[in-house]
Amino acid sequence: MATGALLWQRYQDWLYYHPGLGLYLDISRMRFDDVLVSQLQPKFVKAFADMAALEAGAIANPDEHRMVGHYWLRNPELAPTPEIATEIKTTIDSIASFALKVHDGTIHPPQGGKFTDLITVGIGGSALGPQFVSEALSPDRPPLNIHFIDNSDPTGIDRVLSRIQDRLNTTLVMVISKSGGTPEPRNGMLEVQAAYRAQNLNFPAYAVAITGTGSQLDRVAQSAGWIARFPMPDWVGGRTSELSSVGLLPAALQGIDIHSMLAGAREMDIATRVPDIKTNPAALLALAWYASGNGKGEKDMVVLPYKDSLLLFSRYLQQLVMESLGKETDLDGNKVYQGIAVYGNKGSTDQHAYVQQLREGIPNFFLTFIEVLHDREGISPEIDPGVTSGDYLSGFLQGTRQALYDNHRDSLTVTIPSVTAQTVGALIALYERAVGLYASIVNINAYHQPGVEAGKKAAAVILKLQTDVVKALQGMTISAPVTIAELAATIGEPEQVESIYKILRHLQANDRGVVLTGNLSQPGSLRVAWANK
Amino acid sequence: MATGALLWQRYQDWLYYHPGLGLYLDISRMRFDDVLVSQLQPKFVKAFADMAALEAGAIANPDEHRMVGHYWLRNPELAPTPEIATEIKTTIDSIASFALKVHDGTIHPPQGGKFTDLITVGIGGSALGPQFVSEALSPDRPPLNIHFIDNSDPTGIDRVLSRIQDRLNTTLVMVISKSGGTPEPRNGMLEVQAAYRAQNLNFPAYAVAITGTGSQLDRVAQSAGWIARFPMPDWVGGRTSELSSVGLLPAALQGIDIHSMLAGAREMDIATRVPDIKTNPAALLALAWYASGNGKGEKDMVVLPYKDSLLLFSRYLQQLVMESLGKETDLDGNKVYQGIAVYGNKGSTDQHAYVQQLREGIPNFFLTFIEVLHDREGISPEIDPGVTSGDYLSGFLQGTRQALYDNHRDSLTVTIPSVTAQTVGALIALYERAVGLYASIVNINAYHQPGVEAGKKAAAVILKLQTDVVKALQGMTISAPVTIAELAATIGEPEQVESIYKILRHLQANDRGVVLTGNLSQPGSLRVAWANK
Repeated sequence: MATGALLWQRYQDWLYYHPGLGLYLDISRMRFDDVLVSQLQPKFVKAFADMAALEAGAIANPDEHRMVGHYWLRNPELAPTPEIATEIKTTIDSIASFALKVHDGTIHPPQGGKFTDLITVGIGGSALGPQFVSEALSPDRPPLNIHFIDNSDPTGIDRVLSRIQDRLNTTLVMVISKSGGTPEPRNGMLEVQAAYRAQNLNFPAYAVAITGTGSQLDRVAQSAGWIARFPMPDWVGGRTSELSSVGLLPAALQGIDIHSMLAGAREMDIATRVPDIKTNPAALLALAWYASGNGKGEKDMVVLPYKDSLLLFSRYLQQLVMESLGKETDLDGNKVYQGIAVYGNKGSTDQHAYVQQLREGIPNFFLTFIEVLHDREGISPEIDPGVTSGDYLSGFLQGTRQALYDNHRDSLTVTIPSVTAQTVGALIALYERAVGLYASIVNINAYHQPGVEAGKKAAAVILKLQTDVVKALQGMTISAPVTIAELAATIGEPEQVESIYKILRHLQANDRGVVLTGNLSQPGSLRVAWANK
Repeated sequence: MATGALLWQRYQDWLYYHPGLGLYLDISRMRFDDVLVSQLQPKFVKAFADMAALEAGAIANPDEHRMVGHYWLRNPELAPTPEIATEIKTTIDSIASFALKVHDGTIHPPQGGKFTDLITVGIGGSALGPQFVSEALSPDRPPLNIHFIDNSDPTGIDRVLSRIQDRLNTTLVMVISKSGGTPEPRNGMLEVQAAYRAQNLNFPAYAVAITGTGSQLDRVAQSAGWIARFPMPDWVGGRTSELSSVGLLPAALQGIDIHSMLAGAREMDIATRVPDIKTNPAALLALAWYASGNGKGEKDMVVLPYKDSLLLFSRYLQQLVMESLGKETDLDGNKVYQGIAVYGNKGSTDQHAYVQQLREGIPNFFLTFIEVLHDREGISPEIDPGVTSGDYLSGFLQGTRQALYDNHRDSLTVTIPSVTAQTVGALIALYERAVGLYASIVNINAYHQPGVEAGKKAAAVILKLQTDVVKALQGMTISAPVTIAELAATIGEPEQVESIYKILRHLQANDRGVVLTGNLSQPGSLRVAWANK
């Protein structure tokens, strides 16, 4: 057979189609063979069994001794206890009803009128899902304009508040934090609270909490009388929380159809539960990833949706894929250094950024195209006779896929009819399951994140060091400035000279009392003093 | 010496500091030794000489037989001819003066008043630089609100137009395209033009062109009487065009100080011209990249600015680095498959997305931290006693750097005093030069992009195929629907069945006359007909 015919045959052999969702998955341009599929067969049998156990309520997150229940969110009947099923249903109902009341003004700012804006304060899974969904699905003029505070950056917070201008008194604030103890959302909340106070606005009358029942944040919200509190169950991890209250509440407030999101995910869950590689799209994805990177993440996953509104899908997937799969040890305790790096923005835009490297440079990646069949509402003008801008976009996708394949760069393609609440829900569910299955076949735990703690602890050490440094400088009896090494010795931290230097440099840049003198290009020679002495 | 002391010594040994810019570069946490530096020494000597030749006007882009002159943009005295120097100065003056006139209403919409919004239509370097700079430097309430059309996506274009709402009659449009022939900006322009026409607005009275003198777009703009035209010199490549009219005009219109941007870049250019590795920050960067990836791009470059406003720096760098370095052959014609993959968003946000993988998973990257010393305008509230949200951010950066280093993951850190027009100009210039030097030491050409054409040509083939398919379907005398293979044979393209299938699927999804019947999961069995027969 000619090449075109062979590829067309392979395309048809491996094509997955979901009639209910109108979703296609094509892995025909990933170079794997039947031998690999046979080899992986027993691993997939185990993966399907692992997944069934997880859905039945196994303790899949051993570090926190928790069940992993994101699949129950869209099908509460599957939950392992009636209490959990009821909690899920009640939460969804209360979110829908809360959003309705905010939209119709039943729930309103203290002075009356309606809420116009929404600030969400949250980081990681509490931001990436809501941001992705907002960009994908928010109407052009949503009932509430959403703003994200997803960091501990003072200028970033100032910019959000500044852009809200004079509408702070009609702005709802949603604080999302499972424990209430994560510093970034806590800092964001305190900064926002201060902004309300500065305008003599009673913060609790504007505030909503999404948090674990009984958490620190939950108690604060309850005792201060915040407008509402929604539970964040302990069996939902941050990176799979988009279809919990974390994602559903901001979506509903923006006028996005949360029931369709849940329905799309439920449909996909049913399809990805099928214990057969060829007819299960999540298994096909996991197979393709395995084939590409030898089951070791040797190739990066470049994600290019050819649709502007899906711009943030790759950022969402960065967390879902990398935090789930980036693990040092496997389930047997062997050092394996797993993971798959994910990046990408959108096509055809990224073609003009880095397709040069993808086509000709280092072949350290495979591509994921996301194709959207429906171009727009209404009729497109003709750019050339019989050709629209959407035809161009479609041609760019096909052309790039082909040009890359011709140069031995593999790709897979997910095709959806259009970007709707249903298809977005389905995409989320598809990738959640693919990550879970892939983790099983490479024998790692996808549901914990032991490596995140180290950076947090190291940051806490720095903040403690700052407190000690300031105390020492303020209390120093000697009047002459000291070297940084001397200061480090004074506080009993001679090993931490470099960290102390950086703390001092940061404090000085913010007029916080520290004066560094000398040649800035030679930190070892600098002298430090306290300004107010 | 203890570890801390050794590292502190290494930190000081390699620290670069630019007093005028207040910029630091620290490569002490990249694991390279003096042997490597000695080995690279002769390559750097050549790289510095290559760079001097380029700045003197060598034909550094052989494919297009062009000089590469982005360094002249901020120091016209360096241009190889007085004509080029004059053109640069004249263009900067005319941009500044144009922006002033738009701001004060001298240049205004036909019905009077002032322009309120700005749409830029451009892709690749014509979008990534302006987007990065807008996010980094735009005031919270800029004189003109900027909107980007950077793709050929119909819904993306619709969304921009919809968000402008009823302000189209006070919206300036800037079309950026060197040749005027690149499809995406051409499509964007035609779509936007249609939107103006639909509101009975005279498009030329709203339009500005940034394009090569005498280009197709230049001629259109001239003959239709657009408000203004600014030249895009042929010696400026897209990925290094931010400090040409491409970046300066949108920046000036947003109220950003373009003279400071240019001054910052000029300062950095002077610093990166020094022919000595240890005192040249661009050479230090190139050295660090080389050390990390063995001069073969074996490690991805993860870029994490700990500042929200620098969110798009990594997207900007994706193009600058990957399009420059992602090359199949070296200067001697050997197949080398070079490149460095770039990704990242911002810290500490990304810590909550994928630091798990960075710290514990596949060690296929090095990190670039961007540290900003100044936290915000005004005084920060205390989150904990004596501790601000900015202290936390600073602590997260230090903590993550340390936790990664402890686990054998390398990083480098660029520190700037604050995000200003001057430092942003300097960052752009720093990375432009680092890319140029790195390309020299790995013996590739950084200034062409031969691989981009293949995808464009393949896309053109698809659009041609679409025209043929539609013509054939419309003209078919047989009334019974045919298979896709039969249709392919009819138009003499039997090898293109799969492409034709996808074209048909896309046309059908957009009600463009195609009717596919049969089992959608078996494309080979589908029958196709034309609806209007």
